[in-house]
Formats: sequence, C-alpha cells, structure tokens
Amino acid sequence: MSQVYADRRGRLRDRCAVAGTAAALVSRPANVRYLTGAAPPGAVLLLGADASADVLLCPHAPTGDPVEGRADEALPLTVLPPTGEDPAVAGAGLALGSGADTLAVEERHLSVARYRAVGAAAPRLRLTDLGTAVEQERLVKDDEELTCLRIAAEITDQALGELLESILVGRTERHLALELERRLVDHGADGPAFPTSVATGPHSGRERHRPSDRRVEEGDFLSVRLGAGYRGYRCEIGRTFVIGTAPADWQIELYDLVFTAQRAAREALAPGAAYSDVDRAARHILDAAGYGDRVGPRLGHGIGLEIEEDPQFSPAAMGKLDACVPVTVEPGVHLPGRGGVRIDDTLVVRQEADGGPELLTITTKELLAL
Amino acid sequence: MSQVYADRRGRLRDRCAVAGTAAALVSRPANVRYLTGAAPPGAVLLLGADASADVLLCPHAPTGDPVEGRADEALPLTVLPPTGEDPAVAGAGLALGSGADTLAVEERHLSVARYRAVGAAAPRLRLTDLGTAVEQERLVKDDEELTCLRIAAEITDQALGELLESILVGRTERHLALELERRLVDHGADGPAFPTSVATGPHSGRERHRPSDRRVEEGDFLSVRLGAGYRGYRCEIGRTFVIGTAPADWQIELYDLVFTAQRAAREALAPGAAYSDVDRAARHILDAAGYGDRVGPRLGHGIGLEIEEDPQFSPAAMGKLDACVPVTVEPGVHLPGRGGVRIDDTLVVRQEADGGPELLTITTKELLAL
Repeated sequence: MSQVYADRRGRLRDRCAVAGTAAALVSRPANVRYLTGAAPPGAVLLLGADASADVLLCPHAPTGDPVEGRADEALPLTVLPPTGEDPAVAGAGLALGSGADTLAVEERHLSVARYRAVGAAAPRLRLTDLGTAVEQERLVKDDEELTCLRIAAEITDQALGELLESILVGRTERHLALELERRLVDHGADGPAFPTSVATGPHSGRERHRPSDRRVEEGDFLSVRLGAGYRGYRCEIGRTFVIGTAPADWQIELYDLVFTAQRAAREALAPGAAYSDVDRAARHILDAAGYGDRVGPRLGHGIGLEIEEDPQFSPAAMGKLDACVPVTVEPGVHLPGRGGVRIDDTLVVRQEADGGPELLTITTKELLAL
Repeated sequence: MSQVYADRRGRLRDRCAVAGTAAALVSRPANVRYLTGAAPPGAVLLLGADASADVLLCPHAPTGDPVEGRADEALPLTVLPPTGEDPAVAGAGLALGSGADTLAVEERHLSVARYRAVGAAAPRLRLTDLGTAVEQERLVKDDEELTCLRIAAEITDQALGELLESILVGRTERHLALELERRLVDHGADGPAFPTSVATGPHSGRERHRPSDRRVEEGDFLSVRLGAGYRGYRCEIGRTFVIGTAPADWQIELYDLVFTAQRAAREALAPGAAYSDVDRAARHILDAAGYGDRVGPRLGHGIGLEIEEDPQFSPAAMGKLDACVPVTVEPGVHLPGRGGVRIDDTLVVRQEADGGPELLTITTKELLAL
C-alpha cells in the first residue's frame, strides 16, 4: 500500500517540476489523505524536491483513529509530531531550509491569514498556486479506490434494505435518519458519508432537506438520501417511496417522470461524454414535462474521498467523462406544499465494451409502497 | 428575537466605523449565525453602512432546516436567493454598488482563492481584515444564549445518565457513541455538538480518541465525551468510569488526581482571573504528581456557537475572564498502554456574589463503578 501513496506523490512532484515549483504544501484534508493514506485533523503535507524530503506535519497528538495509524505504514514519509505551530507555517520553514525558492500552496483551501503567516515565516520563498492539481489526480480512481467505493455502496444498500423492512408510519424524520446511520456503522461503515436526509410528505424530494420532527403518515412520499464512508471513500444513494398501499395518480406520474429522467442520465454516462450532455439527458425530460424551474442547478457530481468532487453535471459544465470516474446521477422534482421525488445512484463510468456504467447502489428503483 | 440580531449587527457596524471600514463581509458560519439567526450552509453576510444595507447571500436553495427559516423572522435583513455565484463575490459587488470604498473580510476564514475573486470583482474596494471582531462580540453570552446552553447541558446529562443505567460490558466504543448520539436527539438536541468520543481500557483518557471496535471489558476505565447542540449552542461533558465492582489502586489514585486538578481549575474561574491562571491551577497539580509530560497543551476553552471558542486555557494564553463567559474545564492524563482519566465540565463564569461559577453539566464526578 505505501507504494501507492509514494507513486501519487511522485506524480504530483512531476507536475510541480513542470510548473517550475520546487515544493508544495498540501492542506486540503482529502488531498492529504489521497497522498499519504493518513488524515490526522489539520495535518499538512510538505511535498519536497524528492521523496526523501516529503514530510507530514500534524497539529495534534494522534487520536487513535485507525486511519491515522496508516501514516507509518505508508512510509517512506517522515511524520513530524505537533509543535504547537501551524503545520503550514512549519512546512514553509522546512521548505525554505531545504533550499527551495518557490512553494505552491492550495489557494482554494488556505485562508488568507494562514497564507500571510506562511509568507512571513519564509519571506524568501515565492508562493504560487497549486490550484486543483491534486483534485485532478483524484478524478480517475484506481482499483483499490473502486473496491472501497463498492464496499461503501454495499453497506449503504444493506442499511437501506433493513429500514424498508421496518415499520415506518409514526416515526419522525430525525429518528429514521439516526436509525439509518446506526445501521451503516453496524454494517462496517467508518460512519455516514454525509448527514443522512429523510424527508416525508411535503418535505419529500427537497434537495438538501434536513430531518425534522415530522412523522411519517399514510399517503406520504418518503425520500431518503444516505451513504456510507468506507476507508475514506463515500457513496450516495437516494430513493423515494410511498407510504401505504395505493400511491395517488400524481405520485405515480411524478415518480415515473423522475425515474425516466434519471435513467436517461445514467444511460448517457460513457467515456468521452460531455458533462453537460449527461445533465441535459435528464433535464430536457423534466423541462418538457413543465418542471424546468423546479430542477436544481446540477443533476449529479463526482464522488470519492469527498462527497462532492468534480465533475459537475450542469448545463454550463465544461469537460468530458473518463473511464473509472465514479459519479452520482440524482435528478429530483419538489412541488412546494405537496412533496416530490428524488432518485440518486452512484455509478462508475465504464467503456461500453466493459459493460457500460457500473451501478454501485443496487437497491430497487421500482416505486415501492411501504 | 429579530431585534437581538439587528443589535449585534449594529455593534459590529460601530466597530467597523471606528476602524474606518464602510462595509464588512462575514463568511465564518458561526459568525453569520450569530449576526443573523440563520445559518444556511455557505451563506455570507454583507454588513452595510446602515441596517437597511445588510444582506444575507445564500449559495443554495433553502433546505428545510428550521434554523434557516429564522432568517425571515430575523428581519430587517434582506435575504438574497442563490445566483450560482460565490456569495462573497456577489456581496463585494453589492458593497461596491452601495458606494463603499473599503470592505473588511474575515482573513482567518476566507480562502486565498475567494479573496482574490472578491478583489477582482470589486477592484476599487480596499480590502481590510475584520480579524476576530465578531468572535470577540461572541465571547460574553446574553441570557438567551445562556438559556440555550443550559438546555444543551440538561439534554447531555440526560443522555449520559441513561447510558449509565444500561449494560456496558461487551459493547463496542462505536456502538456506545452512536447510542449516546441517538439519546441526545431523543431528548431534543439538534444533534451532537461534536463527534462523541467513547474510549475503553487502554484508549481511556485520550484527548481526541475516535471510537473503535474495541469492546468494554471488566476492569476497564471507560471515558466518554459528548455534548448536545441546542439552537446552535453546544455544550461538552467528559466523564470517566470504571467497569466492574472494584477499581484498582492505580485507577483510584489517577482518578483522584485528575478530579483534584479539575476542581482546582473550576474554582479558579472568576471574572478577572487570567486565562493562564486557570490553566495553571490544574496543571501544577498534575505536574507535581509527575504527569507534566502527559498533559495536553490546554486544559479548557470557551464554548458557544462553536465547540471551541476563545478563551483558551493554556500556559501562554493572554487575557482575563469576564462574567457570562461559558467555558470548559477538562484536564486529563493518559498512560500509554494502560489508559487514563479525563473529567470535563461546561461552566459559566460568574461573580462570587452571584454564586461563583455556574456548573451546567451536573452528572456526578464520583468515580462510579458500572
């Protein structure tokens, strides 16, 4: 395993060399984890001119998190214990001491105050922007990463499947969300990949609904969105159900529409497909049915060490899909006062010859009446 | 309620005026919440030259979180719907349009990339640093805030009390932590104030232990750290118990030592007391017993809308306590391979004449054998 991280750092080092930067300071937690296998809170990676100069700087003593323990296995990488100083500032000092004349930092992550402190600690260093160099490396996942995502999806399907077998009427959104999160951990998740959303009745189908004390009632739409984290990798599933035996006509129609739109976007996933075309595949169906103004700005996104990564599926997104990029496809329609439908899957983009998009979240998308 | 937020914004406006700044962009979530009563994810407050110019800019559509709904009640405050643009950039554009020539931003929060985008969007604005102006306003809590903290502490005590009545041997740290979090929500918490820590046996007493799959065994120390969030306000309690009927001598001795140190720091809490003196009150007792190198860099901190606020109780901390400042007092000693003890309370600093420090977390600190 340690070679994987050393190789990733090597690729970033090559990028930096091409850009004329001798050293880089990586502070965004998911990027630190990607490059070292370790994620102590607040840790900063100094990427030096060669592998022996790489240093992981930690602001706190270890917490006992098993993930953090991996830093040592992921050698060759020097791990410096906490000094009380901001690790970014300490890293800049080390870079200066090593003779570097430029240091790339993550301007999208580092605060202005920390940036100034880094500059003050190493005034002879020219600071440049690392930009999204690490995020771009993270886009296409390797086999190990895809395995973690598959396990995360399996855990998620299990937790959701168990919930569907239990009595739902009368329970609150908050309790159902907590129950789902407990089941995720029961099945081996590190924890929930993001705060679980459970939305009932008029709340159903809202994109970012936070669970309330509303109880599930007969006739409700119930929409849930959850995902497991497994070894840092996150997946996402969203499903909408109806409570009671007979869905109303408007519920069946709305569900079929969203289902059709979601399937169209899933079928548009292929290496070389434009991000905006995936968005359009679902959006034009919702538009044509008159729900254009009820649809969010984006209908899916990349997923991995973070729940929302590149690419973004939106009308203005630039770029094309590659194979081995995991993404979500998650259109939804919410009708104020009535409720709505969201259907959300995690898939991996694959060549047609390899069987096309790999669906990771396999819970049924039939409209179940619970 | 809305007047409270308008008054807070008025005080910040006065500070800005004194500093010669016509407008300010507040982006740190807890600060936005403090000043508006609302906390939509990623929202930014533009504080204008007068109250009618204040604007809350949101990046997403509303989520149905009841907290967010308060933005409207907390008028007079214009709430702008999402535009797809970074709300900080949009806010800078509004400030420029209103004729401001300077704009204070939170350099400790804003990333370098966003700062540059703000500068590019409003090149004629001189950007200054708002520093910790809002954090300083937040230090002393009003009655409404203290009421929320008392309720958060009551919920926390209830959740912990129930756990103590259940069977613990054989259960994993992760399950106990989840159980505590469920109970917090059962009793009315918004959610856990921070990730619940449950540490057994050799893990016990670690400052930042994350729950593992280790099971509770007879003879273990069990240390827990949890807290409820209530209307955004967070409290914290930490307790250490022993599992089984007869604690070992070393356990009793270590417990008594940490208890004595924690009591000394609690008794040092008074308006006018130096932060470093509160730290020293506990630290010198642990030092004298030979555990100086086992004690963390700080023995407590302020608490409120964030779990860790100013002040910090550490040897080098500068400043003195005020009345109505809620703080934690949380010394601990961890012996590698054996375990340890942490005792953690949330208290409010009060004048001696008002009864001295008000203990919010009232679960017993006797060494219970469970």
